[in-house]
Amino acid sequence: MYAEQFILTLSCQNRPGIVAAVSTHLFRAGCNILEAQQFDDRQSDLFFMRVVYNFVESARSLETQRSEFVPVASTYGMDFSIRNRSERQRVLILVSRFDHCLADLLYRWRTGELPMDIAGIVSNHPRETFAHHDFSGLNFHFLKISHETKQEQEAQLWSLVQSTGTDLVVLARYMQVLSDDLAAKLSGRCINIHHSFLPGFKGAKPYHQAHERGVKLIGATAHYVTAALDEGPIIEQDVERISHYDTPDDLVRKGRDIERQVLARAIAWHLDGRVLANGSKTVVFRD
Amino acid sequence: MYAEQFILTLSCQNRPGIVAAVSTHLFRAGCNILEAQQFDDRQSDLFFMRVVYNFVESARSLETQRSEFVPVASTYGMDFSIRNRSERQRVLILVSRFDHCLADLLYRWRTGELPMDIAGIVSNHPRETFAHHDFSGLNFHFLKISHETKQEQEAQLWSLVQSTGTDLVVLARYMQVLSDDLAAKLSGRCINIHHSFLPGFKGAKPYHQAHERGVKLIGATAHYVTAALDEGPIIEQDVERISHYDTPDDLVRKGRDIERQVLARAIAWHLDGRVLANGSKTVVFRD
Amino acid sequence: MYAEQFILTLSCQNRPGIVAAVSTHLFRAGCNILEAQQFDDRQSDLFFMRVVYNFVESARSLETQRSEFVPVASTYGMDFSIRNRSERQRVLILVSRFDHCLADLLYRWRTGELPMDIAGIVSNHPRETFAHHDFSGLNFHFLKISHETKQEQEAQLWSLVQSTGTDLVVLARYMQVLSDDLAAKLSGRCINIHHSFLPGFKGAKPYHQAHERGVKLIGATAHYVTAALDEGPIIEQDVERISHYDTPDDLVRKGRDIERQVLARAIAWHLDGRVLANGSKTVVFRD
Amino acid sequence: MYAEQFILTLSCQNRPGIVAAVSTHLFRAGCNILEAQQFDDRQSDLFFMRVVYNFVESARSLETQRSEFVPVASTYGMDFSIRNRSERQRVLILVSRFDHCLADLLYRWRTGELPMDIAGIVSNHPRETFAHHDFSGLNFHFLKISHETKQEQEAQLWSLVQSTGTDLVVLARYMQVLSDDLAAKLSGRCINIHHSFLPGFKGAKPYHQAHERGVKLIGATAHYVTAALDEGPIIEQDVERISHYDTPDDLVRKGRDIERQVLARAIAWHLDGRVLANGSKTVVFRD
Repeated sequence: MYAEQFILTLSCQNRPGIVAAVSTHLFRAGCNILEAQQFDDRQSDLFFMRVVYNFVESARSLETQRSEFVPVASTYGMDFSIRNRSERQRVLILVSRFDHCLADLLYRWRTGELPMDIAGIVSNHPRETFAHHDFSGLNFHFLKISHETKQEQEAQLWSLVQSTGTDLVVLARYMQVLSDDLAAKLSGRCINIHHSFLPGFKGAKPYHQAHERGVKLIGATAHYVTAALDEGPIIEQDVERISHYDTPDDLVRKGRDIERQVLARAIAWHLDGRVLANGSKTVVFRD
Repeated sequence: MYAEQFILTLSCQNRPGIVAAVSTHLFRAGCNILEAQQFDDRQSDLFFMRVVYNFVESARSLETQRSEFVPVASTYGMDFSIRNRSERQRVLILVSRFDHCLADLLYRWRTGELPMDIAGIVSNHPRETFAHHDFSGLNFHFLKISHETKQEQEAQLWSLVQSTGTDLVVLARYMQVLSDDLAAKLSGRCINIHHSFLPGFKGAKPYHQAHERGVKLIGATAHYVTAALDEGPIIEQDVERISHYDTPDDLVRKGRDIERQVLARAIAWHLDGRVLANGSKTVVFRD
Repeated sequence: MYAEQFILTLSCQNRPGIVAAVSTHLFRAGCNILEAQQFDDRQSDLFFMRVVYNFVESARSLETQRSEFVPVASTYGMDFSIRNRSERQRVLILVSRFDHCLADLLYRWRTGELPMDIAGIVSNHPRETFAHHDFSGLNFHFLKISHETKQEQEAQLWSLVQSTGTDLVVLARYMQVLSDDLAAKLSGRCINIHHSFLPGFKGAKPYHQAHERGVKLIGATAHYVTAALDEGPIIEQDVERISHYDTPDDLVRKGRDIERQVLARAIAWHLDGRVLANGSKTVVFRD
Repeated sequence: MYAEQFILTLSCQNRPGIVAAVSTHLFRAGCNILEAQQFDDRQSDLFFMRVVYNFVESARSLETQRSEFVPVASTYGMDFSIRNRSERQRVLILVSRFDHCLADLLYRWRTGELPMDIAGIVSNHPRETFAHHDFSGLNFHFLKISHETKQEQEAQLWSLVQSTGTDLVVLARYMQVLSDDLAAKLSGRCINIHHSFLPGFKGAKPYHQAHERGVKLIGATAHYVTAALDEGPIIEQDVERISHYDTPDDLVRKGRDIERQVLARAIAWHLDGRVLANGSKTVVFRD
């Protein structure tokens, strides 16, 4: 009981007394604060907070916790969320032909490094493409797509998201652009890995563009998906050094290592309530 | 008035209610929390916190702020400190022959990047060693040292620390080992830059040791000085990649860039109340 | 035919004319130099070179190439090796309970990123430990070990190395120390990943040591195995930033990402003839 | 005599025998090769080489060396250059209001880390802007500029380049765009530091653009100046991690550290003949 941890995240217009109100409320409710991070965005005058707490004695139910927090939230006009930290979110992984991110996510899931349930694996390529992967206990869905069937395929996808109770959709090198409609439905819960350091090289074949331009570093970007595919709020980025010796193929190869790390970090932070939306940007309370 | 910011840092045995007590106290005192970081060390069960706040209306004096906080501190057995963030600390810089850290600190001080007052510059080398440096408005002290005069020189040094109201002593490649006695007197307010990635290569000529061993990365370490010179609590470290092409001289050259950056970061964080002692380690609330 | 590439590596006492002799020889033999790197170690006065070449017309056999190079090698007292670049080396992977490096190596092998043949996988843990790995087409050997059976187990291991024609043994988090005898037999063709930034923390549980010391970066080291396990010539190292928030478990988790990357790089360079022994150090002609 | 080193750089259409021809020529001329790097660009089929050599006995004059190399160069259609490595190039530094790169370059010049002669310092701001800099022994030129006088100012600048025998012009945060005409005249010998990671944020106030976009890394780019200011061949780039806590001012501050390092590296490599033009890209033989 004591060990159960809860994550409270909130945002609101900034004004004095928020931290006092939140921490006093938690103290009176019998809670012990384990982690707390906050951020005042002085440009937008918005306030963001993440608190991890447990109960000194027996824990109240999530419903009770939420309803008891409503008065605090109302006073300050907060958007808030309270989750049980150990309750695993359900993640649907979408992948096309390149499976390095998929392989990485499955490994981190099996070791417990990524504490999530896999709601399913969806690909526009058939099961054979992933012959060497152990999908035992996992549901694989081959959702073929063509220009004509895109709308229909997305309907199937959306139906899968709903039927599986998916909390988060991960585009793990899924090379199909989501329609604006689907992107909107998945707003704030769909993470894409862009195989380039944005906004450097948007569009197709970014590593070839990077090679053409003669840059000395390449990178990858994990971001939330919005209607404009490459333009969603950035969660994480990283780079690796390259040189004139590297061919476009070398860049692709070196890029794989960055992509899988950047994506894994972004997912881990999202699952742990560390990423808060802030307009077209994010607030990331890193560990 | 409104713009004045204060930094509260504290540590104590962990128990529920600390954040609530601190934030409620600040709210009632008319304060607005601008930044807050906390850390529960679950190994030692100690709690660390740093809060930056200002006053919504007119600010109270530092004395009043401190005395009003005493009851909170007593209840939880806190060590605490409250400072005016814009009140510049007085920094005494000690340097020997290698002046790259000195040059860097002076530059960052002049641009305002390091908001400090320079209490003086002390060297065991004469003013000519630093001919190209502009020391206008600064006090330079040539404190010669030899095996015989070490005790006497340290007495002069200590007297200088006291007469100048020095808050922080920086060993900016000062190649003399402080006596245990002086190190103890400066405990928690003397930062050294060790020209190596500790604990890899202690002792003399660490870059030559690194070259001999054939390592592929070299680094630097900024730490608080304790009686055991290379063993004080680490504040910051960084590395740079090297190869078989690099001679020991190349390592020394590449090391200079890391040293000055690592030292500058450590000082900046110390000045902003971001570094809290935690036994033989530090808690660093990075920006 | 034209596409076949050969790798010549050599080392000798330095003196004028080596590059001319080698390149003239290759030119007269009908070769086209594709890559060439060299290094004069001015401390030891040794010269190291790696040349990749192909044939403008039809290629000669490896035996012919080698025998034709002998006069050049004799003149300069060279140690040399000529290999067909596309002839895959046979790699025997040894692993204990932690399988993150194994998983990574298998993935890079399947994608062709590591162009090698896997001579077998050996563990002191049974097949079930690796239940989720696809070992189809691979030979797995469970070689149990205890204090009493160590000598016997190593005999089995050595016999396996010989019977499988193993070129390179990789200790992919194999937690058994090789005997001096076996280490000597595998000299220059056994790579270990040490889960720490050497020489920082040798011995057991280096991440716990690092946590205890409060360092701000952790790292990993890939090195050739010699009788003194942690002291062999270093091939590659890398680090990751940590903070006071990280528990020893977090260090272990973050360490996994560095370990697998550092090991994969070291193997890739070894396979491509980029790592030359230089006493207790290495010369690494990075790509 | 023996200690004098020479740098030969060349490029030509690739074909077999180049390395043999060059190294045999040098051997017959009594030279000892100290460093050699080469690169085959398989896309353009161009070959690039840099050789550092000295003479076993007494050195020949530069004129002799050059004239004796002409037959080799003719045979292969090479562009080539031979320089005395210890003959310092003359560098003209242009700077506007922000002096962090200037301060850094002067420091590295004084320590001998950048082996160059400073042909002069030019600014569109008066001497007072740089009050704390020691310009003793250096010529400072205040070349005021306005929209009306731009052409005239550039004429003065060009005249200065010629009269001072300037080999390299460095735009050390010189905030004026060179005219296409002047850029063309300085082709291949004018290095700019762009205060952003190109091609991410071109144009004005790149750090503000980066903040607006919410990126997680910022960078700097050193490149040769061409008519299109931000589009010249890239020599070096680097990045630093940022977070939502960083204001645009913080980005500017953090950017300064990257800018000065990236610029210093680019200049050091250029001075040592390590940067060869390859169309809109560069070949950089790093140390």
